[in-house]
Amino acid sequence: MEEQENKAGQSAGSSRRALLHEILFESGTPRGRWTDIVLFILIVASVVAVMLESIDTVRYRHQDLLIGLEWMFTIAFTVEYVLRLYSARYPGKYARSFFGVIDLIAVIPTYLSLLLPGAQALIVIRILRLMRVFRVLKLVQYSRAGIHLLFLLQESWKRVWVFVLALALLVTTIGAVVYLIEGPENGFTDIPLSMYWAVVTLTTVGYGDISPQTPLGKFFAALVMIIGYAIIVMSISIAGRHIKRTIPCVRCKETKLEKGAAYCKHCGHKFHQH
Amino acid sequence: MEEQENKAGQSAGSSRRALLHEILFESGTPRGRWTDIVLFILIVASVVAVMLESIDTVRYRHQDLLIGLEWMFTIAFTVEYVLRLYSARYPGKYARSFFGVIDLIAVIPTYLSLLLPGAQALIVIRILRLMRVFRVLKLVQYSRAGIHLLFLLQESWKRVWVFVLALALLVTTIGAVVYLIEGPENGFTDIPLSMYWAVVTLTTVGYGDISPQTPLGKFFAALVMIIGYAIIVMSISIAGRHIKRTIPCVRCKETKLEKGAAYCKHCGHKFHQH
Amino acid sequence: MEEQENKAGQSAGSSRRALLHEILFESGTPRGRWTDIVLFILIVASVVAVMLESIDTVRYRHQDLLIGLEWMFTIAFTVEYVLRLYSARYPGKYARSFFGVIDLIAVIPTYLSLLLPGAQALIVIRILRLMRVFRVLKLVQYSRAGIHLLFLLQESWKRVWVFVLALALLVTTIGAVVYLIEGPENGFTDIPLSMYWAVVTLTTVGYGDISPQTPLGKFFAALVMIIGYAIIVMSISIAGRHIKRTIPCVRCKETKLEKGAAYCKHCGHKFHQH
Amino acid sequence: MEEQENKAGQSAGSSRRALLHEILFESGTPRGRWTDIVLFILIVASVVAVMLESIDTVRYRHQDLLIGLEWMFTIAFTVEYVLRLYSARYPGKYARSFFGVIDLIAVIPTYLSLLLPGAQALIVIRILRLMRVFRVLKLVQYSRAGIHLLFLLQESWKRVWVFVLALALLVTTIGAVVYLIEGPENGFTDIPLSMYWAVVTLTTVGYGDISPQTPLGKFFAALVMIIGYAIIVMSISIAGRHIKRTIPCVRCKETKLEKGAAYCKHCGHKFHQH
Repeated sequence: MEEQENKAGQSAGSSRRALLHEILFESGTPRGRWTDIVLFILIVASVVAVMLESIDTVRYRHQDLLIGLEWMFTIAFTVEYVLRLYSARYPGKYARSFFGVIDLIAVIPTYLSLLLPGAQALIVIRILRLMRVFRVLKLVQYSRAGIHLLFLLQESWKRVWVFVLALALLVTTIGAVVYLIEGPENGFTDIPLSMYWAVVTLTTVGYGDISPQTPLGKFFAALVMIIGYAIIVMSISIAGRHIKRTIPCVRCKETKLEKGAAYCKHCGHKFHQH
Repeated sequence: MEEQENKAGQSAGSSRRALLHEILFESGTPRGRWTDIVLFILIVASVVAVMLESIDTVRYRHQDLLIGLEWMFTIAFTVEYVLRLYSARYPGKYARSFFGVIDLIAVIPTYLSLLLPGAQALIVIRILRLMRVFRVLKLVQYSRAGIHLLFLLQESWKRVWVFVLALALLVTTIGAVVYLIEGPENGFTDIPLSMYWAVVTLTTVGYGDISPQTPLGKFFAALVMIIGYAIIVMSISIAGRHIKRTIPCVRCKETKLEKGAAYCKHCGHKFHQH
Repeated sequence: MEEQENKAGQSAGSSRRALLHEILFESGTPRGRWTDIVLFILIVASVVAVMLESIDTVRYRHQDLLIGLEWMFTIAFTVEYVLRLYSARYPGKYARSFFGVIDLIAVIPTYLSLLLPGAQALIVIRILRLMRVFRVLKLVQYSRAGIHLLFLLQESWKRVWVFVLALALLVTTIGAVVYLIEGPENGFTDIPLSMYWAVVTLTTVGYGDISPQTPLGKFFAALVMIIGYAIIVMSISIAGRHIKRTIPCVRCKETKLEKGAAYCKHCGHKFHQH
Repeated sequence: MEEQENKAGQSAGSSRRALLHEILFESGTPRGRWTDIVLFILIVASVVAVMLESIDTVRYRHQDLLIGLEWMFTIAFTVEYVLRLYSARYPGKYARSFFGVIDLIAVIPTYLSLLLPGAQALIVIRILRLMRVFRVLKLVQYSRAGIHLLFLLQESWKRVWVFVLALALLVTTIGAVVYLIEGPENGFTDIPLSMYWAVVTLTTVGYGDISPQTPLGKFFAALVMIIGYAIIVMSISIAGRHIKRTIPCVRCKETKLEKGAAYCKHCGHKFHQH
């Protein structure tokens, strides 16, 4: 479909933009594929560089190399961002899209760190330096599976919401009860910390940094663990049941019937489904 | 259906009650929706206030503000409770319902704390203060999903019961065996504590506050962990199998049919089950 | 069916045995139900007594009461065992059955402890005392769900076996690798202990009593955790796929077809299933 | 099929090779079955010997026995390997296959340890000694279930890949954020270590060797735990949904049909899919 735009008689600029569009946005073509592979390697390398920079011994020994690499990555991603803006059908739409924002966030921090006076805003610089890790999110667009996953998440949003609401109610009440049973003298200094303990226990993580000391607290903790464990094991059987979604028979109205049945399995009534 | 009751010729009191009923009980109407949103915010704010109050530094600095807020919330929920009682079709039924009891529990503790002599019953006051956290349960009624979840739980009650019974047997025997292997000299001071360890291990929480010291104890602990892990992984395949339990139709023999069907859903043949 | 045996003209002994059989083995009849409830309470009470006895402070304070209760429970279960042997259709079969053996184990330890010289065999006595906890397994027979669970376990034996074999291979290789990486100097003193760590990590229990100290060890541990976590999450999707178990079409042989289909969805061939 | 090759008139060497092939490669025949059982016991025994050797007290006490056993196992597995090479249809193909490589790795380390000067290369010797544990992988070929599992893994490779990619993105971003919140002063010394913490928390393992100290860090940790827990619980309902994706048949309209079907499985109507 795209090739038809690229007719003879068009200006050189237009054909250059069409070529760039192919290279940057179309993974299906051989040229687009090569750009993907090069960018994939650049992204992974830049994220690894940020990680290594965070290790003290590595930073002190290889500071110059890491700064050099950082500028190389930043310039490469800046060129990519500018070319994408230039070649996109709707530059404004690209700039506001998820991947447009991620592409911008991938280059801004390094430039901002130049503008800041070195010794003063250490925390801001640390935050900016770390933000470069989010370049890893650029990888999502090179993976069909990643996009599929985002889509699935969006579709099951309602289920996620029920799950989060139910968990919030559980964690709040469990946190309050354990705070009452154990109290500040056993390490449960306030309700928010007790709610943190409730999450640690309910999700079966179990750090052990705070744990109940009294017999009653241990009994209650055991209950909470069983609830958290049961949610996993039980949700399997509840999920299994959802598959049997049925509709009522218009004649006998007594049993709910499976979709796809030609006759009511209770009264033998023939269905006319719409 | 409700609008028909609200005919001309009725007394002003009756129409006022009908209006209140709409505002407080009917989430479908615009007025009812606004009440829901306001109450939702009030509930969340009051629960957050109780949480903040439990943090020592916050309580000492903002004591007056917190007491003021507490009375504001209590009066608001009291007004809500009284109006609900007044406008409900069957006030007695509402008062005894799940949400009626929760609505009452949301206001009682603050009033009770007035009647108690300040310095004496500190523990009772702490319990009362904490009980206000249960206001969070008022949220359930504003969420269709919450009610759906309660319904699902009620339906799968039998499965939950089997699960709890099986877990109780496992935890008791595991607790006794580990108490025998490790004994009081390795931190497993009695059977109830050993059962607590069994729950911590079986549910894959794993605090690490008590852990086996002897080689035999470690081997047994590894077995318990594998059982707990297998229950999760295995229950998935067992749940998968439940879907398939079918018997063949004697006439058409083409489809396998669900147990409990009176007629073949494929050819309409009537079954004679034993 | 059973009532027909109980005809007039039979000896008094035979009718007494039939009555006992009804009381002890038939949960469906009112009399059998009462026996079930009484025995259920006795079993739970006797297991709770063993648990309390294991707590030092409780044992010293209530020694006489606990010994008295213990003999009461033992005599009750002995009477039950003797009556069951007397009234069973096939006494030998009952004595060798799962529940027959459990019923015997429930009474033997108390009698054995009489035969042993008090001060000498302390460990043996502790084992015998603990074995009384297994009385809890007597509960299984009073629960239809428990028997259903045992049946399910038996049916999925093959899957459990695959799971255990795969886990054994994983744990052995992981244990050997972590022992190589971390070594005795970091707490991984030998391969069996390293395998214990592998189980603790793979099953997501995570006590933290032994944990990797070197960067390479931590990287490997992260891999192991992801494998353990993936087994749970992945087995769900693999289990989901098993439901689509299909049979090949005899004509086109190209696609595998769902059981229950009347026509091949690929070539339209009509099936004649057996 | 194999017996036909073994005709009269062939040389004795050829029939000897055919017999060896039956013994070593064909589990279906009685002779092949016996070889399997003997080799199974040898493998398990040799792996147990390596494990015991790693325990200091056992090694010092039974050094001579362990060295003797080790040579016995090595010679047995060498004979097995040579005979397999000799009797295989395509020796080169066997040598390069998964099990061929495993069979070679099972014997090489012991011979290599002879060539190395005793005191010098201790670490290399330790690695070689440990590699003998991988003999356990030889077990896979004696289990139909093991091969089935390998096949399932291969088939679900794409899902595993999506899962690993999603986890890598999550772990990288979570690690960077927690490093920012907690920092080196709370034990999160660099990003790789913070990513290790992210894996420990996300997979619900929860060692507790590193855990957040600040209130904000604890809040974020609670979020991470809920994500890890939700992935397990949610993937169940998402897996459940995949089963239901169907389209209605245009002719009979009675059953919903699977995507990819060429004919309606109910009425035999031919589909024209786009």
